[in-house]
Amino acid sequence: MDDDLAAGSCILADAQDEVADGIDRLFEQLLTVPDDPRERLYRAMRHAAIAGGKRLRPLLVRAAGDLFHIDRTPSLRVGAAVEAMHVYSLIHDDLPCMDDDDMRRGKPTVHRAFDEATAVLAGDSLHALAFEWLIDPATHADPFVRAELVQELARASGPAGMAGGQMMDLAAETANFDLRTVTRLQQLKTGALIGFSVEAGAILARIPAEGRLPLRGYARDIGLAFQIADDIMDVEGDEALAGKALHKDDAAGKATFVTLMGLERARDQATALVEQATAHLAGFGEEAALLRAIARYVVERDR
Amino acid sequence: MDDDLAAGSCILADAQDEVADGIDRLFEQLLTVPDDPRERLYRAMRHAAIAGGKRLRPLLVRAAGDLFHIDRTPSLRVGAAVEAMHVYSLIHDDLPCMDDDDMRRGKPTVHRAFDEATAVLAGDSLHALAFEWLIDPATHADPFVRAELVQELARASGPAGMAGGQMMDLAAETANFDLRTVTRLQQLKTGALIGFSVEAGAILARIPAEGRLPLRGYARDIGLAFQIADDIMDVEGDEALAGKALHKDDAAGKATFVTLMGLERARDQATALVEQATAHLAGFGEEAALLRAIARYVVERDR
Repeated sequence: MDDDLAAGSCILADAQDEVADGIDRLFEQLLTVPDDPRERLYRAMRHAAIAGGKRLRPLLVRAAGDLFHIDRTPSLRVGAAVEAMHVYSLIHDDLPCMDDDDMRRGKPTVHRAFDEATAVLAGDSLHALAFEWLIDPATHADPFVRAELVQELARASGPAGMAGGQMMDLAAETANFDLRTVTRLQQLKTGALIGFSVEAGAILARIPAEGRLPLRGYARDIGLAFQIADDIMDVEGDEALAGKALHKDDAAGKATFVTLMGLERARDQATALVEQATAHLAGFGEEAALLRAIARYVVERDR
Repeated sequence: MDDDLAAGSCILADAQDEVADGIDRLFEQLLTVPDDPRERLYRAMRHAAIAGGKRLRPLLVRAAGDLFHIDRTPSLRVGAAVEAMHVYSLIHDDLPCMDDDDMRRGKPTVHRAFDEATAVLAGDSLHALAFEWLIDPATHADPFVRAELVQELARASGPAGMAGGQMMDLAAETANFDLRTVTRLQQLKTGALIGFSVEAGAILARIPAEGRLPLRGYARDIGLAFQIADDIMDVEGDEALAGKALHKDDAAGKATFVTLMGLERARDQATALVEQATAHLAGFGEEAALLRAIARYVVERDR
């Protein structure tokens, strides 16, 4: 078991490096700064998108794609699209009228490094580019596959997904949400995009919807585990390590998994979810090693 | 000729009423308010999207679709998607950090009627929904068609289109743009989405790219004519009639078609562009009557 864990962490570290490099190279290429008055817009997008974050979502696309032995070029393109979507949401969530954050991924937020209007437009631009990159024939030769990717990403990022979850998160500061509502909030806010990332690997492999059920279960569980770990980190994390402001939920009097369950039960729950996530992968063999390693990683990052 | 003009204005008025009704009905249905904490988000989207504006873009989709005798149900769905994209851009452009507008389409802007965070998220949500509606099989049975629609809409709305144009527009307040740069700015800011609307009719009819050249010429010309008319209206229009604040460009010292060309030359140029736009349609017969009427309308609205 210790050998398995060690092997898992090698697989994870190697894949993480490869995906992070690949995503940066793709962003460099797809976000070339034009020599015209839009230069500032592209510089703002690059500031937020390049060399930042753990690239969890592209890593999940790659890991799910590995299950079905698909080419890594399409899975990297899909990874860049979902990461662009994630980065746009960070830029907008950091705005003064939203969470009003100064630091993100160890750098000044876009509205701090540039200005608010540029931040709004950089987010809007990455949002559109995510779909443009996804629907490009370079992503997959089959338009059915590309259409399904766009459909799922649009659902995961709109009002029935990420944007709806962020709206609930704003409401959480004044409403008194119970555990069920906080769970739903997080399933929309972060779970939907994590779910898309995992499912995208299966879509690229043309696995029909019923064959994706184990992956959906896996994604739902690691999505929640991820958010519980995030709430725990908000309470006991190190700001320098996290690269962003922490201890904000408590200050805002916001209901989180930690305030609702207590630190210990939250930690137990995260561990149980990781085991449950791994159990969904029981039908797979060695090809699921990366997905298993990621499940452990989501609750152990920054510890 | 007088008979033709009168017939044209009947065709236009009838189509406008039908499209406006259809778009409102579709929005009512697609933006049903959920009974959960996202209720405010949906109310904000409905505030901005329903019963507002002249629906020029959906009207253009319908008019271009009429050329090829396509069904009106798909063209209405595409119209709703492009209108959602347009409405999202208005919500974000009106934000305090952008143009800081209080009124839009005769109503308070979304950040005034709700709040800034809700306005950002309502825009983001409509942005995602535009793609979700477009890629839905209800729009067209052929995934090639849906994929091409998404590809073109993403291009038209991202940094190489609408969002890029808005960035240039912000820069215009401090830079001293010449006529060529202002033309490029407007081609991105408003021209790209107008171009998409016209081209979408041909895409729905599966007309190959080379067969769409007259339509592209038409769209480029009416797009510019539309913007020149807008600049003229900013100088001599009636705020109550326009439903928004006017005389803003001059106050901001911004280069526009009117400041660069003078009022008289700008008016002549708009008229010449409308004639040129109509000339692109010479190969079509009666089925282009609505497109011809729209070309005249874009420079005559609010007069």
